[in-house]
Amino acid sequence: MRISELSEQSGVSPASIKYYTREGLLPAGTRTGYNSTEYDERHVDRLRLIRALIDTGGLAVADAARVIAAIDDRSMPIGRVFGIAQRAVPRASAQPSDTALERIRTIMRERGWATTADNPGIVLAARALDEFALTGRSDLDALLSHYAAAVDLVAEADLDLVASSGDRDRMAETVVVGIALGDALLQGLRRIAQESLSHRRYRAGVVPADRREPS
Amino acid sequence: MRISELSEQSGVSPASIKYYTREGLLPAGTRTGYNSTEYDERHVDRLRLIRALIDTGGLAVADAARVIAAIDDRSMPIGRVFGIAQRAVPRASAQPSDTALERIRTIMRERGWATTADNPGIVLAARALDEFALTGRSDLDALLSHYAAAVDLVAEADLDLVASSGDRDRMAETVVVGIALGDALLQGLRRIAQESLSHRRYRAGVVPADRREPS
Repeated sequence: MRISELSEQSGVSPASIKYYTREGLLPAGTRTGYNSTEYDERHVDRLRLIRALIDTGGLAVADAARVIAAIDDRSMPIGRVFGIAQRAVPRASAQPSDTALERIRTIMRERGWATTADNPGIVLAARALDEFALTGRSDLDALLSHYAAAVDLVAEADLDLVASSGDRDRMAETVVVGIALGDALLQGLRRIAQESLSHRRYRAGVVPADRREPS
Repeated sequence: MRISELSEQSGVSPASIKYYTREGLLPAGTRTGYNSTEYDERHVDRLRLIRALIDTGGLAVADAARVIAAIDDRSMPIGRVFGIAQRAVPRASAQPSDTALERIRTIMRERGWATTADNPGIVLAARALDEFALTGRSDLDALLSHYAAAVDLVAEADLDLVASSGDRDRMAETVVVGIALGDALLQGLRRIAQESLSHRRYRAGVVPADRREPS
């Protein structure tokens, strides 16, 4: 297909397509003549991946390029792809307190979680604890242990999705896509569960979705 | 205390303190003379809340002002504060597909979740499903049901934290702080659990944190 059709199918403008090609995120098309280049389905798929990383994941183009290089490097084990993708997603910049770091390490010991020392989740979670403490909420033991049990379920599901994706390339893509999209999915479901539970606890009389009158 | 001390204790510059006061996020201090204003601990607490909303939550100042007004309105039930805070946190703008919306509504029925029709989590979760589908992953039944079970745990913990915060004002603050900080905490813990599990599944030999040599 020509660049105009690729643009239409992927929803990415021709200018952005050229930009992603120059930056190494998208393989070049096949030159078929003076001023004409052919693209195929793999370019459509790749553009969707790029948009998911940049739009939903909030990755900078350079970080998306690094993640995509990891996908394309077939010698790289899936465990490494996880590490690279996790580190590319925007994260807390400030250094957490020792108290918060120690609290996260305690949870990790309790759950039997073993990671590399620079797993970005450690700083992210510890920073969140610091912010909770700054706003006067430091008794978070119950919250933390429930959250930890919850993310064990989530991580199992994440890894199952990766394992069921097919060959190594598809697995690597699922790792990458899943980090940002899984965050968004979790955030969405959490808001739904929160509201539902808050209605149940704080006032009655909300009608479940399936018993609502057709509107 | 003077504005200089308030600035030091809260880590917020005097210019920002004045800005937040003008925008209605921070109550004015008490004028104690020509060119001198007194602030107290409540100003320190409020500034920390403002920074948590804006820095960690990513809220625009106008949205933070709306959320803070909900906290300060003592006639507002906690369930409503949830709704306002959930809607203030930045979210997906594009409209999700009917397929994805229906998938989320099915999950809601299965879990017995009842919300108002415009709960922002519905669009957020449905958009994430659309993005997964765009990148070729549409068989998400197992993932969704695990995530749903996980967020039930999370939402229970969220509501418990709110309930244990003390009086109504503290509860309202915890609602607001908890939405953004809980997202960050979940993201962090998820990355830790992912890496730990991925090591366990894809290669052995990572030493748990508590059996590492002191560095």
